[in-house]
Amino acid sequence: MNTIQYESQTEKWGVFELSCLGPETGNPFVEQKISADFYAENQTVTVKGFYDGAGIYKVRFMPSFEGRYCFCVRASFLKEEVTGEFLVTSPREGNHGPVRVAGTYHLAYEDGTPYYSVGTTCYVWELQSDERIAQTLRSLKEARFNKIRFCIFPKHYDYNLGEPRSYPYEGTPMDSSVLTKENFSFYTGKTEGNHWDFTRFHPAHFRHIETCILELQKLGIEADLIVMHPYDRWGFSCMTKEQDDLYWKYVIARFAAYRNVWWSLANEYDLMEHKTIADWERYAEIICKEDKYSHLRSIHNCHGFYDYSRPWVTHCSIQRQEPYLSAEYVDTWRARYKKPVILDEICYEGNIQFGWGNIDGEELLRRFWEAACRGGYAGHGETLMNPENVLWWSHGGVLRGESHKRFGFLYDILCETPGLGLAPYDWKWDCVCAVPECEFLKKVKSYYLFYYGFTRPCFKEFEIDPETEFEIEVIDTWNMTIEKQGTGKGKFRVELPGRKYMAVHLKKTNCEKCEK
Amino acid sequence: MNTIQYESQTEKWGVFELSCLGPETGNPFVEQKISADFYAENQTVTVKGFYDGAGIYKVRFMPSFEGRYCFCVRASFLKEEVTGEFLVTSPREGNHGPVRVAGTYHLAYEDGTPYYSVGTTCYVWELQSDERIAQTLRSLKEARFNKIRFCIFPKHYDYNLGEPRSYPYEGTPMDSSVLTKENFSFYTGKTEGNHWDFTRFHPAHFRHIETCILELQKLGIEADLIVMHPYDRWGFSCMTKEQDDLYWKYVIARFAAYRNVWWSLANEYDLMEHKTIADWERYAEIICKEDKYSHLRSIHNCHGFYDYSRPWVTHCSIQRQEPYLSAEYVDTWRARYKKPVILDEICYEGNIQFGWGNIDGEELLRRFWEAACRGGYAGHGETLMNPENVLWWSHGGVLRGESHKRFGFLYDILCETPGLGLAPYDWKWDCVCAVPECEFLKKVKSYYLFYYGFTRPCFKEFEIDPETEFEIEVIDTWNMTIEKQGTGKGKFRVELPGRKYMAVHLKKTNCEKCEK
Repeated sequence: MNTIQYESQTEKWGVFELSCLGPETGNPFVEQKISADFYAENQTVTVKGFYDGAGIYKVRFMPSFEGRYCFCVRASFLKEEVTGEFLVTSPREGNHGPVRVAGTYHLAYEDGTPYYSVGTTCYVWELQSDERIAQTLRSLKEARFNKIRFCIFPKHYDYNLGEPRSYPYEGTPMDSSVLTKENFSFYTGKTEGNHWDFTRFHPAHFRHIETCILELQKLGIEADLIVMHPYDRWGFSCMTKEQDDLYWKYVIARFAAYRNVWWSLANEYDLMEHKTIADWERYAEIICKEDKYSHLRSIHNCHGFYDYSRPWVTHCSIQRQEPYLSAEYVDTWRARYKKPVILDEICYEGNIQFGWGNIDGEELLRRFWEAACRGGYAGHGETLMNPENVLWWSHGGVLRGESHKRFGFLYDILCETPGLGLAPYDWKWDCVCAVPECEFLKKVKSYYLFYYGFTRPCFKEFEIDPETEFEIEVIDTWNMTIEKQGTGKGKFRVELPGRKYMAVHLKKTNCEKCEK
Repeated sequence: MNTIQYESQTEKWGVFELSCLGPETGNPFVEQKISADFYAENQTVTVKGFYDGAGIYKVRFMPSFEGRYCFCVRASFLKEEVTGEFLVTSPREGNHGPVRVAGTYHLAYEDGTPYYSVGTTCYVWELQSDERIAQTLRSLKEARFNKIRFCIFPKHYDYNLGEPRSYPYEGTPMDSSVLTKENFSFYTGKTEGNHWDFTRFHPAHFRHIETCILELQKLGIEADLIVMHPYDRWGFSCMTKEQDDLYWKYVIARFAAYRNVWWSLANEYDLMEHKTIADWERYAEIICKEDKYSHLRSIHNCHGFYDYSRPWVTHCSIQRQEPYLSAEYVDTWRARYKKPVILDEICYEGNIQFGWGNIDGEELLRRFWEAACRGGYAGHGETLMNPENVLWWSHGGVLRGESHKRFGFLYDILCETPGLGLAPYDWKWDCVCAVPECEFLKKVKSYYLFYYGFTRPCFKEFEIDPETEFEIEVIDTWNMTIEKQGTGKGKFRVELPGRKYMAVHLKKTNCEKCEK
């Protein structure tokens, strides 16, 4: 009888891992199966395991409750079931569980702690050198990002045409030195010269990504995993249906037990010309079936949105579709989809030639505030040219821009909002105004956040309610200062500096608490 | 027999004026009539005259041809017709005649000289002190504006609540010291306390405006006269139909002979709640009938556009209708109305609390360039707070902003475009591109003007035609520099500084001339 290896205890929402030895012969990825049932007072779950190479098979599980769990392992290579038990302890500090949709338009960790998304994109930061990966983690921490979008597959696109540190499959890549701009377009899915066995994964590639997911987890950062994408010279974007499904199941078996994982089915799904809507729906079906923890699920567009009203889509993961407006549509999209609106791509702070990567830090920060005050969440990226040709958006590394220094300030203000999250409020045509999402707090006129964007009034007059007294704060969103201007009641006037990117915060003094 | 006074000669498109004495008794404005026929080889026109007070009656005429003209005056107080003749000389330098629509979307003086509108708004600059009027004229000249919008009636609105230098009617105004924000809203048309005789004009008010129109003419500036408006505490916005018609006819009889006059039926016509579409159409009918020179005609909106497709409307005179986009719609509006698109109000450079008056100079200049590259024309205004409470948009005076210093640079570039005016060209999604309006020049790929607005690429790649060679200019629209970067053919790359508000100019070397 094989020995099953496991730790005798794990924390709630931690990863409990079973491993055992099995056959190395044949093709273990497709010929062998392993799964386990997990039982506790409040939970019964069956999860599939995976082959991790070198004869090692693993099953991973994320327990959602504290207390004693039993398991029962079955495998094609095991003569009989193997059972055991382990203890789930209370979560350690900083472990709030996976992020869930909360209150229709917002997000919260499973323990109820609100999660205000401040995300960035570094497509293949984890496929860089160890040194750069460490640098990226330091940058992420310093900028206080709490989400990062990145790809499992390597990426072939401008500024990122080299070889990744590893490949997901056994085999050899094409010789990229034969490529020129003329004979290669990233989304044609041409695969000449590649020699992969799409039935044999390269476990080290995935193990490395797991290390990175865990590093992010330690920093409180969600890993928004882009499972498929079109920037490809290796053929990973045009595998067969069976190959795709094998990949999806392997990815889920390996990654789903990490509490900070989100599923992004694809980046710019609509550029993947070999895939149909039926394919995307099938992948979604696989996730819904195989991911026992219901991690957040979405899909990111280029030209046109995926139908975010599909039941499996937990939140919108939007790329803006116009050169001028982006965050300004958050309220429209909230109303349309009745889901959290995350603007993962609204033009990066940068100076490259493409219009999706050349706005300045002021404008990107403006879009963040605009999105926040309309009840949504914007995302960052950086495409600033530099002599090393290391662009944050693709490689990670150091942050060179200006906007990232100012997201933490916004985040702190979001954390102070009463209730969970902000909702847009139709105040006047010439500014955005946010109120608490909570109906009770809205009704008692507890809180108003006015944002003036690129306009620069040197004062504003208010008249909200004759009886309600408000504490007045003038917020400089760029310089990150908050100036208290006493209180106001009935009609009152707030002095402003006549600069751009200012906000006014009105908070009801002695506000009632929401009973919810 | 009365003596008719007149000069024996005038220049083409100058004002030829006949004057004579008549009765002062009764109400000459409504009881007497005077008109004259003018004859020349190519022109026969009958124009109505007006009573100018103190027993003086006048008839004004703008001749459109050189050579000998005859006239024949008739008046209710003249026993018989009086005839005479005068010589029309060639226009003096700088006199290009009235501005006309040219080539569907653009404008030109009657002598064929292109007119690229660079306008501003100072609603009642001409009703200020002589000193401030002189200052405004100096400012207009220095900034090289070639159009100014202003009102004939005085204005009652924030920052402009005092008495004007004169009133258009005989009578006395209300005591404005009784007004508070609470008991007076500018567009209710309440008239208590005013005592006017709406059948008796105050000629000095109009004579003064004529002086101002002439001063503008000397500077080559078009007078876009706002004949009606809603910012009123005197009742001028809610006269009866008969009173309105009398006013319109008086205005036309006095002002139409000045070649630099444009008719703006109203500012924010839709705020004038006492007027109906039928009223506006009736005023338009009066202009079309009484203005023998067919000066440009339009009407300016607040919330919703007037139907610019009405045949009498010569061009769109637009106030933007959204807080974010304005100039970006020029091509849409061109396509919809098939007329010149002038954006007379797209938010002023300023820092007042209202969202229509608090953008910075960079953003206003951006809107000018955006409008120009889409084949339209933007308008300036300034609402910068200052200790004297003298805001350019209302009073004129000195310019305190940054944008006005940079319109002349744009104007010079427009003057250099081949053919008449620019047309939008669908290049790529992330910039605007202008080409000549002329089909021939478009076809031969003569000229491209790319504008990058708030994006800041540090280079751009071009591929227009394998055979066409272009002279490359990099334009910094803010710093007003033009850097020549040699020539490009086939695929070429243009280096940019990675700053905002840049443009690239590509001009075909050895370009064919348009034969038209």
